[in-house]
This record gives sequence, C-alpha cells and structure tokens, in this order.
Amino acid sequence: MSLQDCALATDLYELTMAAAYFDNKETSKATFELFARSYPRNRSYLVAAGLEQAIAYLSKLRFDEEQIAFLRDHPSFVDVSERFFDYLRKFSFTGDVWAIPEGTVFFKNEPIVRVTGPIIEAQILETYLLSVINFQTLIATKASRIVQSARGRGVVEFGARRSHGPEAAILAARASYIGGCVGTSNVLAGYLFGIPTYGTMAHSFIMNYDSEEEAFKRFCKIFPTNPAVLLDTYDTLEGAQKVVSMGLAPSLVRLDSGDRFALSKKVRHILDRAGLKDTKIFVSGDLNELIIDDLTRRNAPIDSFGVGTELVTSRDDPALPGIYKLVSVEKNGETIYRVKTSEGKGTLPGAKQIYRRYSKGRNFLNDVLALANENPPSDTVPLLIEVCREGKCVYDMPDLGAIRNHAKEEIARLPAKYKRLKGSVEAPVRLSSKLNHLTNSLWKLHNRS
Amino acid sequence: MSLQDCALATDLYELTMAAAYFDNKETSKATFELFARSYPRNRSYLVAAGLEQAIAYLSKLRFDEEQIAFLRDHPSFVDVSERFFDYLRKFSFTGDVWAIPEGTVFFKNEPIVRVTGPIIEAQILETYLLSVINFQTLIATKASRIVQSARGRGVVEFGARRSHGPEAAILAARASYIGGCVGTSNVLAGYLFGIPTYGTMAHSFIMNYDSEEEAFKRFCKIFPTNPAVLLDTYDTLEGAQKVVSMGLAPSLVRLDSGDRFALSKKVRHILDRAGLKDTKIFVSGDLNELIIDDLTRRNAPIDSFGVGTELVTSRDDPALPGIYKLVSVEKNGETIYRVKTSEGKGTLPGAKQIYRRYSKGRNFLNDVLALANENPPSDTVPLLIEVCREGKCVYDMPDLGAIRNHAKEEIARLPAKYKRLKGSVEAPVRLSSKLNHLTNSLWKLHNRS
Repeated sequence: MSLQDCALATDLYELTMAAAYFDNKETSKATFELFARSYPRNRSYLVAAGLEQAIAYLSKLRFDEEQIAFLRDHPSFVDVSERFFDYLRKFSFTGDVWAIPEGTVFFKNEPIVRVTGPIIEAQILETYLLSVINFQTLIATKASRIVQSARGRGVVEFGARRSHGPEAAILAARASYIGGCVGTSNVLAGYLFGIPTYGTMAHSFIMNYDSEEEAFKRFCKIFPTNPAVLLDTYDTLEGAQKVVSMGLAPSLVRLDSGDRFALSKKVRHILDRAGLKDTKIFVSGDLNELIIDDLTRRNAPIDSFGVGTELVTSRDDPALPGIYKLVSVEKNGETIYRVKTSEGKGTLPGAKQIYRRYSKGRNFLNDVLALANENPPSDTVPLLIEVCREGKCVYDMPDLGAIRNHAKEEIARLPAKYKRLKGSVEAPVRLSSKLNHLTNSLWKLHNRS
Repeated sequence: MSLQDCALATDLYELTMAAAYFDNKETSKATFELFARSYPRNRSYLVAAGLEQAIAYLSKLRFDEEQIAFLRDHPSFVDVSERFFDYLRKFSFTGDVWAIPEGTVFFKNEPIVRVTGPIIEAQILETYLLSVINFQTLIATKASRIVQSARGRGVVEFGARRSHGPEAAILAARASYIGGCVGTSNVLAGYLFGIPTYGTMAHSFIMNYDSEEEAFKRFCKIFPTNPAVLLDTYDTLEGAQKVVSMGLAPSLVRLDSGDRFALSKKVRHILDRAGLKDTKIFVSGDLNELIIDDLTRRNAPIDSFGVGTELVTSRDDPALPGIYKLVSVEKNGETIYRVKTSEGKGTLPGAKQIYRRYSKGRNFLNDVLALANENPPSDTVPLLIEVCREGKCVYDMPDLGAIRNHAKEEIARLPAKYKRLKGSVEAPVRLSSKLNHLTNSLWKLHNRS
C-alpha cells in the first residue's frame, strides 16, 4: 500500500471547507497552531517528533487528475464550481512554518508547529500534520519513559508486529530512537532512517529442530561472530544449562517469558559459574516502563531490554490529543485574533512563541507562552524556529542521531518531578501578561470566562 | 512515505533465521498459524480483518538489489554466504495459505491464517502479516462494539488525526467499515477502498469569520444541497438559536463538546419548535462505546455519531496479542508436530481447522478446534478456506461491502453474552479429542503439563 496519493490522506471537511473558502474568495492569510490540549495519562512532559515527515508532506503536496476526478464525482462537491478544481490542479503550499525542533521537550498547550498561509492551504494540512506529529510525539515520549526506567541499560524497539500497520511500525521505530532507544528490530526503519537494527531468533527456530541443543548448535555455527540464543521455548533454566553443557559461548541469551527477575538471576548464576561472564542477558516479553523500573531498581542482572507492544502502541494511553487551531486571520492588513470557547475546549489567540528559562543557564526552570510579536521575556530562549518560508524549507533538518542527542539533553535538563512514571504535575507554563489580557478580552466577547 | 520497499518491512530476526535455514539447507515445509493468545480487555469475540492486505503483500514480496546490498552490509550478516543473497534475489512466496474470510467472528486461540511452505518463506511473512492483521482485527472488533452501542444509528469513523500515522488511518477506516461503521472522514480511504466519506466543517471555519452567523450563512450558501452546521464553537445553544433565527434549514447540525445528552435534547427542542424536524443531530467528541451506549439507552435525540480517537486507536486496549507460531514441519515425508511450552505462552500443535456449530442452523453454538486432517465433527462448518495455492491467490476476494455484510450477519448470530461491553466470558471453543491428546503428549515430552 502506497501513500503517494497523500493529497487525499485527509479528512473530507478540509476539502469541503477549502471549496467554501475558494467560493468566498477568502485569500486572506490565517495562522494555525498545533498543540496538545492535555497529556496522555501519567505524563507531565512530551518529546516533540514527526516534524521531518510533516515537512516532507507539505513540501510535495499536489493533487493529480485522478484525485481531482474523484472529488468532482463526490456527492459533497455537487455544489462546487469547476474553478475550484482548477485551483486544486495548481495547488501547492506557499506558506510559512515555525516549529520546535524534534527531540525538544514541551508541555501541554504549547504550540509546537505554527503554520501561516492562505487559509485554504493552511487548513488542508491539518489532518496529515496531526496524524504524523501526534503519533511520533506520543511514541518518543513513551520511549523516553521506558529508557529512563532502564537506568542506562539499552532498550531496543521490538514492536512491529503489534504496531498499527507497517507504516506505524517504521514511524514508531523512528520516534523510539528519538526517545532514547538504542535501535529497533525493524529492518525497513534501519534502511530508511539509518537506525541500528537488532535481532536474535524466534521460538520457531528452536521448534524447527528435534532438540533445543541442535537448534542452538546450528545457530551458533552460522553466526559465530555474535551468536544470540533464545532460552525459554521449553524451559528457561534447562535452556541455560544446555548452553553451558554444550560448551557454547553466546554473546547474548534472551529470556522472553516467566518471572524475569528470578530467571535473570538464576541464568546469570548458571552462566557465571561456567565462566561465561561476557554473555549478556537480554530480556523481552510484554515489558513496559513500570516492569523495567521494578527490575532495574532491584538490580536484576539484565543487560538490555526489548520492548514491543507497550512501546509502539503507547499501550497505557495510545493517543496524544494534539489539535490544530486557528489563532488569527489577516484581513485588510489587520491581524484579527481568534479563539474558540467551547465547553472544556477553549483556545488561546494569536501567533505565539514559547520562551524557555533555565536556572544557571543549565536546568529547565519554566516556560513563558507569549505572542510572537511581543518583546521576549528577559533571560529566555525562544523555542519555535523558522522551518518553511513561502513554501520552501529553510531549515537544515538535523540527522536522527543529532535529534536523539538533543532529546537526551532535554530530558537530562528536566527536573525529576516531571519524569515520574505515575501521576501528572502542573505544566510549568505561564502566559505573558499581554497574552493573558488578550485571551480574557476575547473570551469575554463570547460571554465566556 | 512509501511502503513499496516492503520486503524489508520485517523484523531483522526473520532474515537472520532465513540465512541460518538457508545455510543448514532446510528446504522442508513448515506450517505456521496466526492466532490471538488472548483478547484485548473486555472483549469476548473478535472480527477478522486484514487478509486482503496480507495476501497483497505476500504475493508481491521480492527483494531488490538495493535492499540486498543493505543486508549484505549489515553487521548481523557478516557471517552469511553470498549464496544466501543470490537466494533472496530469486525469492518469491510459493506456499499455501488457508484463512477465515474477513468479517468472520472468531475467538482466542483459534488460527485465522495458516501458512504452509518452505520454512524460510513461511517464516519471513511473520512480522508483516501480524502487523496488518492484528491491527485491522483490533479495529474491526472495536468498531463492532461501538456500532452495537449506537443501536441502529449511524457511526462514522473520524479518527485520522489520532491514528498512528496516515497508513494506520486508512487501515482503520477500512476495518471500521468492516466492523459496521457507515463511513469515514478519510478521503484516501474512500478513494482506495470505495468507503463512503463524510464531513461537516471545523471550528476554524466558524472562527475565520467575524460572527458565527456569517460563517453559517456562507457555508449554507456554498453547500445548499446538504448544509451541515457546527454549533459548539462558542456556545452550543446560542449556535442552535442562531440557526433558527437566521431561517437556515441545515440538513445536519454537529455537537462536539459539553454534555451531549442534555445539549442534544435542548437542540432538538429548538430545532423542532422552528419546524426543522428534518435537521439531523450529529454528535462527536471523544465518544466511545460506553458513552454511546449510555446516550442511546437514555434515548438521546441523536441521529448519528462521529467516533475518532477511541475507535482508530482502540483506546481502551490498543493491541491485539496475535502471534504466528510454528505448528508442524515436514521432514522426509513425515509430519512432525511442534509445540512451545514457555511459561504462560504454550501453543497447540499441528495444522488445524475451526469447525463451527450452529443451533437450528442459524445461531452460533460453539466451535471445535481440530487437526486439519481429522474427520470433521458432525453438523459443523469449517471456517478456514483455501486462499493461496503454491504462491498464487486462488480466492476470489469479496468486495468490502460484502465483507461488511458478512460481519454484520456474524455478529447478529452471536449470543448476547459475547457482546457485553464489560467483562470477558470463556471462549466457546473446545479441542477435538485427537488434538487434545496430541497436545498433552507433546507437552509431556517437554516435561510440562
């Protein structure tokens, strides 16, 4: 399945609204901001990811004749003039984008992407941008939690089979790497993104042979450089005993079931007694940050972890409630600020900038959310940077290793209370007085407070 | 992002095991079965989906030179002979596949896909098959729960922005349609699969204009045939009053926030009093089967629902624990049965068939899981059918509408206790005495019971 046809990878209403704007001759510029209204459960920070795919999408966004023919025949477009389809034929994104770099830590209600352009163009991007940024941010954040709980031991992303399809698998691998994983089992993610790929063997390999010994022997013969052996097909401790009595010296053994704490201690003991001190213990099987936190707190002799389902689906909360909202329009040279005041779903007006303050220039202190055209608060660093100007990318996309290092630094600079695995603390974000004042006055206009 | 390079859309160990099998000259046939070890939370049945994408994948599975070059340079293949890469150059799937049709209801531990072929070929399919079938089955099942709770009102899938990437969005739209949704907001899913697509307007459309009235008026002017109006940008009831006082007659109004029960009643009242009896009320915003069940039990005057995040991520449990396990190998003309006896993760041996029994030929009674080469139990219907023979698809894939109808019938025939929204009941599946006997004897061989 190819997503080359990505101009249609959007919600229908983006296109019906486009037709309405076109018919109304709405050529004015509009500014939209993408932000998370709230956190997934038990989160107090987020790690931005997905910008590269978002920019690739909007740079190449075009409608071909077949797609246009599909829309022309669609019942929702029965009232739409032919001139709109001519417009789509020539469509490309000509606007400006500001965003925070991938790997940057941010908080709820902070805009991480800001799009300014003719309202039709800026509106059409909504669905795809949200899909690709919500998901990768969700997974980069989940990965950072898991990696922290591993306390320095490597974590490999292992979840392709439980991902929400093959594309979700590679996007999850990319986001997991940004969040601190050392690699992935997904070969395509290695091929496309240069992420280190790892693997051992499946239970089926063991099961194919009449005895576990035969399977171990054959695998170690084929892969003498870095043999890895899976121990738990029948019985983990018997598996370990067999490795030792056969005189094998695998570089790694994998435990995939049972009480991983008790088994890792016993397997370590069996290996050590046989002098296999260099054989690493790799543990997998329905792990998450809470289980890993428990194993590492108790000093289980585990060298690294493979985490699949829980990581690539962010199983404890599989959706980031990111939204994309209109914050201002320009009409006759004037900026008109916009808010939504729906019950529990209100928004902040105007193009904004996030200003971050550090204590002693190093550790994270707090953020100020201000209008982009205000004077910056003192001793702060702006987070949103220019990414596209008039439809062209003007940002030198960092490579994935650099993004990963940036995320690592960001998380290191974040106070511990935001990194707790359970509960959620108040976002350390205050509004500038100008933004606060503007918000209040607009909400009052709509009889809300 | 294109998934044309799908031969690498797999876990690394599938390919290292392939290399090991190749080096060991393992040309024997093996049989693998795909099944769910357990249910997602609060489920007692599953709706099969994803077979069409699985078959498309394995039919066209090839390795190109660039992919082979990537593998040859990979550290895991440093010990692998050049002859293996020659093998990959000529690789195609030549095996047999049996499966249950999409839309069929099934239970845990029942194999829904069975692959028999040279072990390398059958093994390599694992990751992709699991990813595409686990996900679509998860979502078709979730959709069927939501559709049942809607009690005859239409449910539209609205979740692209919270899906796990753009491909997950179209796969979710497809699976949701199989599970009983009337359509999707996703245009690409309409384009690729012919699913009906629906949409209204976003809050941004309202916010773009200086007044809500102006926005309503302009949208209804552009779309006179089926105007749909979003009421809750500022205040839902004020929005409804404006529609009425402006003399508009939208075909549909949408409520996206607040107390949907109270608001739908009040909005219905406002509309009815103005004679707008034909204006439908469409409700969206963080809905799920429990909320919809509550609304429809209380007879909220809602005509249809839009469900996004909760549906496309199966938010209450976002992973189906489907696995793909070796059940037998053929060596020297003899079938050797295989099991795994890992703690809590044991498997059943042998190529199997699901035999379904109906009461009075109509309602579902129970299933018998038997070896595929046993005599069928009396008064039962086999569920797995031949899909591929020697690598060629021999199954006339039904169109999506037929699959959806099949699922609807299947769910109608299922007793109510399996369809409860909370809790999980025992799977109505028993093993044939032959399968039971074989399983026990093999488990004993590995000192397990």
